[in-house]
Amino acid sequence: MANSKFEYVKHFEQPDNLLPNTWVVVRIDGRGFTKFATKYAFEKPNDKRALDLMNAAARAVLADCQDITIAYGISDEYSFVFHKSTALFERRASKLVSTVVSTFTAYYIYLWSTYFPDTPLTTPLPSFDGRAVCYPSVQNLRDYMSWRQVDCHINNLYNTTFWALIQLGGTRAADKNEILFSRFSINYNNEPEMYKKGSVVFRDYELVEPGTHNVAQEIEGIVEPVQQSKTQTEKDKKRRSKARIVVEHLDIVGDDFWDRRPWLLSNTPGKIPKEP
Amino acid sequence: MANSKFEYVKHFEQPDNLLPNTWVVVRIDGRGFTKFATKYAFEKPNDKRALDLMNAAARAVLADCQDITIAYGISDEYSFVFHKSTALFERRASKLVSTVVSTFTAYYIYLWSTYFPDTPLTTPLPSFDGRAVCYPSVQNLRDYMSWRQVDCHINNLYNTTFWALIQLGGTRAADKNEILFSRFSINYNNEPEMYKKGSVVFRDYELVEPGTHNVAQEIEGIVEPVQQSKTQTEKDKKRRSKARIVVEHLDIVGDDFWDRRPWLLSNTPGKIPKEP
Amino acid sequence: MANSKFEYVKHFEQPDNLLPNTWVVVRIDGRGFTKFATKYAFEKPNDKRALDLMNAAARAVLADCQDITIAYGISDEYSFVFHKSTALFERRASKLVSTVVSTFTAYYIYLWSTYFPDTPLTTPLPSFDGRAVCYPSVQNLRDYMSWRQVDCHINNLYNTTFWALIQLGGTRAADKNEILFSRFSINYNNEPEMYKKGSVVFRDYELVEPGTHNVAQEIEGIVEPVQQSKTQTEKDKKRRSKARIVVEHLDIVGDDFWDRRPWLLSNTPGKIPKEP
Amino acid sequence: MANSKFEYVKHFEQPDNLLPNTWVVVRIDGRGFTKFATKYAFEKPNDKRALDLMNAAARAVLADCQDITIAYGISDEYSFVFHKSTALFERRASKLVSTVVSTFTAYYIYLWSTYFPDTPLTTPLPSFDGRAVCYPSVQNLRDYMSWRQVDCHINNLYNTTFWALIQLGGTRAADKNEILFSRFSINYNNEPEMYKKGSVVFRDYELVEPGTHNVAQEIEGIVEPVQQSKTQTEKDKKRRSKARIVVEHLDIVGDDFWDRRPWLLSNTPGKIPKEP
Repeated sequence: MANSKFEYVKHFEQPDNLLPNTWVVVRIDGRGFTKFATKYAFEKPNDKRALDLMNAAARAVLADCQDITIAYGISDEYSFVFHKSTALFERRASKLVSTVVSTFTAYYIYLWSTYFPDTPLTTPLPSFDGRAVCYPSVQNLRDYMSWRQVDCHINNLYNTTFWALIQLGGTRAADKNEILFSRFSINYNNEPEMYKKGSVVFRDYELVEPGTHNVAQEIEGIVEPVQQSKTQTEKDKKRRSKARIVVEHLDIVGDDFWDRRPWLLSNTPGKIPKEP
Repeated sequence: MANSKFEYVKHFEQPDNLLPNTWVVVRIDGRGFTKFATKYAFEKPNDKRALDLMNAAARAVLADCQDITIAYGISDEYSFVFHKSTALFERRASKLVSTVVSTFTAYYIYLWSTYFPDTPLTTPLPSFDGRAVCYPSVQNLRDYMSWRQVDCHINNLYNTTFWALIQLGGTRAADKNEILFSRFSINYNNEPEMYKKGSVVFRDYELVEPGTHNVAQEIEGIVEPVQQSKTQTEKDKKRRSKARIVVEHLDIVGDDFWDRRPWLLSNTPGKIPKEP
Repeated sequence: MANSKFEYVKHFEQPDNLLPNTWVVVRIDGRGFTKFATKYAFEKPNDKRALDLMNAAARAVLADCQDITIAYGISDEYSFVFHKSTALFERRASKLVSTVVSTFTAYYIYLWSTYFPDTPLTTPLPSFDGRAVCYPSVQNLRDYMSWRQVDCHINNLYNTTFWALIQLGGTRAADKNEILFSRFSINYNNEPEMYKKGSVVFRDYELVEPGTHNVAQEIEGIVEPVQQSKTQTEKDKKRRSKARIVVEHLDIVGDDFWDRRPWLLSNTPGKIPKEP
Repeated sequence: MANSKFEYVKHFEQPDNLLPNTWVVVRIDGRGFTKFATKYAFEKPNDKRALDLMNAAARAVLADCQDITIAYGISDEYSFVFHKSTALFERRASKLVSTVVSTFTAYYIYLWSTYFPDTPLTTPLPSFDGRAVCYPSVQNLRDYMSWRQVDCHINNLYNTTFWALIQLGGTRAADKNEILFSRFSINYNNEPEMYKKGSVVFRDYELVEPGTHNVAQEIEGIVEPVQQSKTQTEKDKKRRSKARIVVEHLDIVGDDFWDRRPWLLSNTPGKIPKEP
């Protein structure tokens, strides 16, 4: 029994393959998270449990997908960076976005009770939307990452100040000023790094001395998706699966972070650190 | 503190708005569900619990989003139809796809224990990918739906036969034939409708007499997204939210299903049936 | 000698096939025609020679390409309508647009001396740009055509009034009013139809009685590109090539124009009129 | 008089802006040029007049559009390279392609009689189609250019041999071999450079010593469309308009061509050479 009469409808599917040799960033955002945060009484301006849950879900996405070299998260958003050489799903935008969003959501729901043991999740459930953006050059990609981290800093500074003011509700204006501009500035420095810097997720290898790797050249040499020999690909795969996926709260605007971790841009796995 | 130096990266985001006045089908598929079905020992060829879970997740998606008029599911896939007049997310493909996929995934994980009370879900978790396809005419849309239902029938017939053969492992060939082509053909008719027809999910109103509604005209009159007065939109919204979302196993290839439920294509809510 | 080392660059070409079963309108516009019109002293507000040249070039485009069923032109713009069933160039936008623009430009330059025998064309030469837009329904397409014709009317009314005022330069204000709102309104009716209605270009067959053809049904029946048998396609081709391509100045907003020329929407060639 | 009832059709136009910070190549091809070449009795395998006409039309395109830094042509095709920083027409693909195709066609028709003084052009007229492709890195762009030039070489070698064989029609096989592989190989070297290398069109400035310019760095520094101050942009514009547009037949696969002409990739105009 054939299905040919109706099969023509397949031709309406339109290709959405992303331009080769560009960095693909899939950014996801919580849908209606202001309301959601209120429902579950998230602490203001930052709720450690909620951020830890976001980070745990992001780690799971990286574990699921080796083509992602780094991810960066703040508040209810997360950006996942596919290396410019990725050929995953033939670089189809909808497949890349939906897979990241689905995997992230699955772990967010699944791990909820770990981070909120006393607050059972009830319907309507949290969900995320996503989109993919291509960046042609390393500079564009790093500027994107910097944009998010600077945004994190601005938002957090604003929110921390705002909520401090709320808590100081009854205080006289003069005191508020004093508090905010002298005493509080000190406090801000004492804020946890996760709130000030956001969270960076990546595979961890031995740090290298800056200047010892010519990453720029390595990257320029990659001119199209998947160029390696099969053996090399297999070797890299194994090494990546052995690497620990870490969540750090570091400055990613400056050069140092990238210089010491050449594998993030070159996509060549580094050395697995020895167990202490 | 301005973020202007890096903000230029926003301009790399490329629009992906879908053509107005076309039916948008978001189809999602389980990722690696063959392996997943083995891990959780799904019954072959159909596992009622797994299908019920899929249907429950699909119902939740319709409850979350009124712009979806109908959904159709078989096996580990589900198609959600946004009315051609939808202006949701400005019809951006990535937003539509990711929202459906995320909501579906969230409920799939959340409701797992309801349908598999004795089988706790363990990592790696199930996930789904998705894509959006536009269909310009009602005929194209109905042909798409028919394509999926005919596929359901073909696959189910094949799988049922295949697994029956497996179970008849030791039997002599002649007996197998006898069993499959005489006795078994009767059995196939006794198979549950859900396996043979798949599942249709929609808002339920009072059925109408075929021929009493000129849906074709109503639909042609809709020439662009969101055309109603605000009051009408609000009224429709209320009526839709009162309607029960049902899961049925009906023939959607023939005209009867559509003729008796004009609201599916016209997007005008019908009458709420009286409680019995 | 192989070219394989560099051939990978072919994969950067991204598909731009237009959605099947939609009407494709390619609209072209003169680039910098205000300046161009001044250079060649086009008459204001309408230059018959310039419009005739546009129409001649448009006729040549229709003669070159049978998949275009109708074209409509005003001022320095022209819209070419490909039937929704067209499979020309696999419906690739860049091929459709560039072919129309190139053919139109070629004839515009080539025929210049026919319409401007005393004004030789000098560099920089006139040129055109173009774009393709899809319209899913007949109503959308007709609304597009109506939009252009109403625009023609509005612009022409405005321009005619404006240039009349310029010519009445010295007159007293009161007289101007009298002239424009009483006397001139009569004159406007006497303006040539080409200025008031624009130009419609199409293959001419015998007109039919309105109501005798069910075009709507014929069109709905077409659900995907190219569905005919080869023989029928060949027959239609021959008939189309025999049809005279005419330039008319008719109302295309109302139903009458379309009802009497069912072939414009059905794409089924009509009867060739007998020679008188 | 308003046009609002129909104006909604404008929203069906879908954006086609090309990814920022990528090199845009618009390649045009003659439509049906095999037949066209026969009609006008082009010489085989290369017709100098036809190639000179192509080159003249390409020069006119560069003169018309400063955002094109280099063009390369072989046979009936031409590739035009827009600098990766171009913001022309907001990088809309259809505008870029149609403008190049239209301008090229206009000059091809207009200049025909200059290059074919004894062969008047008759209808149907020659025309061209085109498409735009983005290349993210300089390496990708150069590989594209190399691909075309190697193709030129392969095709020309093949065609020259083929037509030589045709002309040697009566000769015995053994003699043919002798002729082709010994004597002819010498002849091939004597072929005009234009046939062997194709044609490169660009603005000419003083050549620089290779190694004195760090183009790579200059290019990496450009991260988005239009970044200059207005004054600098104006200055550059003037210098570009003073530069002579040349047609050369050089090797563009090796580094030397690019190293000595840093302006091709940096988009910073060089020094205007002194008149001899």
